[in-house]
Amino acid sequence: MRYKITIEYDGSGYVGWQKQPDQPNKSIEELIEKAIFAMSGEVVKLNCAGRTDAGVHALGQVADFNLEKNDYSEHRIIMGLNQHLLNQKIAIINCQIVDDSFHSRFDAVSRTYIYKIINRSAKLTLDQNRAWHVPIPLDIKKMQQAADLLIGEQDFSSFRDSKCQSNTPIKTINVIDISHNDQQIAIKINAKSFLHHMVRNIVGTLYLVGSQQMQLDEFSEVIAAKDRTKSGQNAPAHGLYLYEIEY
Amino acid sequence: MRYKITIEYDGSGYVGWQKQPDQPNKSIEELIEKAIFAMSGEVVKLNCAGRTDAGVHALGQVADFNLEKNDYSEHRIIMGLNQHLLNQKIAIINCQIVDDSFHSRFDAVSRTYIYKIINRSAKLTLDQNRAWHVPIPLDIKKMQQAADLLIGEQDFSSFRDSKCQSNTPIKTINVIDISHNDQQIAIKINAKSFLHHMVRNIVGTLYLVGSQQMQLDEFSEVIAAKDRTKSGQNAPAHGLYLYEIEY
Repeated sequence: MRYKITIEYDGSGYVGWQKQPDQPNKSIEELIEKAIFAMSGEVVKLNCAGRTDAGVHALGQVADFNLEKNDYSEHRIIMGLNQHLLNQKIAIINCQIVDDSFHSRFDAVSRTYIYKIINRSAKLTLDQNRAWHVPIPLDIKKMQQAADLLIGEQDFSSFRDSKCQSNTPIKTINVIDISHNDQQIAIKINAKSFLHHMVRNIVGTLYLVGSQQMQLDEFSEVIAAKDRTKSGQNAPAHGLYLYEIEY
Repeated sequence: MRYKITIEYDGSGYVGWQKQPDQPNKSIEELIEKAIFAMSGEVVKLNCAGRTDAGVHALGQVADFNLEKNDYSEHRIIMGLNQHLLNQKIAIINCQIVDDSFHSRFDAVSRTYIYKIINRSAKLTLDQNRAWHVPIPLDIKKMQQAADLLIGEQDFSSFRDSKCQSNTPIKTINVIDISHNDQQIAIKINAKSFLHHMVRNIVGTLYLVGSQQMQLDEFSEVIAAKDRTKSGQNAPAHGLYLYEIEY
């Protein structure tokens, strides 16, 4: 039986999705695999839709796994795994029995991330480790104008981490929508898939535009340069949320 | 010079607003008074608009104090106090120089609280200690119908903590608005002032209505009874936010 699970986590204090041999019990992947083992006695290998870095949060991460010997209901999977994850800031929020051919990563049609910024001078309290604190004023209209230049199929080499393993820098961004509510800014970005650190590198560059350190024509030049050294900083991990995987 | 400051805090881990002699450096009040002393060398006594209990958060608490020897700008107060509160989950988000007659508590026209509920079966991750986790389904329409019965000037003895020091149980609720977005429920409540634990006792009773454990006519009877033993539980402190003080 193959199960597709939807996972929410507070990324603070974890090393990210992927297992790290030198950091036992610190990755989301390992902790969920251990919960599955504790529940079923079966050793599984999780597939996941989008590996997140240390500190990055998820509201709708998706993973799948097979159980060979056991036959649990969807409800039982949710309750059982959450029971074994009680001391973790990780929760299974949905489960669906899927066809044996289902694969969380390869079957995903697109991925949506949200990046949260709190734009005010005072330090953060409730949003500590949950948003990027930007104390200088940001011009959201300018940021949206720059963001619009990223829509469509393009070479995103300027926003690609040097450790990226993708075989092409060509990606297609479907949506970048920047909304704000008082001091809270949310950048929603949807694409079929992303390069390594692509969302955070884009946000770090939009920040330069919003804070008047980069003009719109310079932003166009950054895209055209296909050179990571031309773009802005990799925005902090703790502002990023893997929001939803579309199938 | 008298200063009015607006304060945001994550109530987790604090004993609440009020100083507790046996719990040094654990109250919001004491920590801000110490920050003022560290900045100015002056010992002050803060007035505040609404004392919050342990675990209760604030997005817009208001307090005031006098400085006798120093003459700081509003900006300097914000920056200086936040500097001395760096290790705390407390931030001064605004400051205004006010008339000597100003008093945070007595001059407040009304107070707005928001109570947050996450209504889903799975345990919480990012919202841990920031919302009340209610795993059984809530009927929000029924809760709003019950809430509407609380509007206006009434005797709120049924929602009054036994330790309440108010000289009257008569209060006037101006607004109770229950909104929801997927699994998130927010109960916004505005009144000139509240009895001790009144908001949380109301929420605990609305929960009984929403979960079909209490009918609307029984809710009316609870109000009419003027008896705290007839109403629901005191809803958890960590779902409550002091949202705004109106002057």
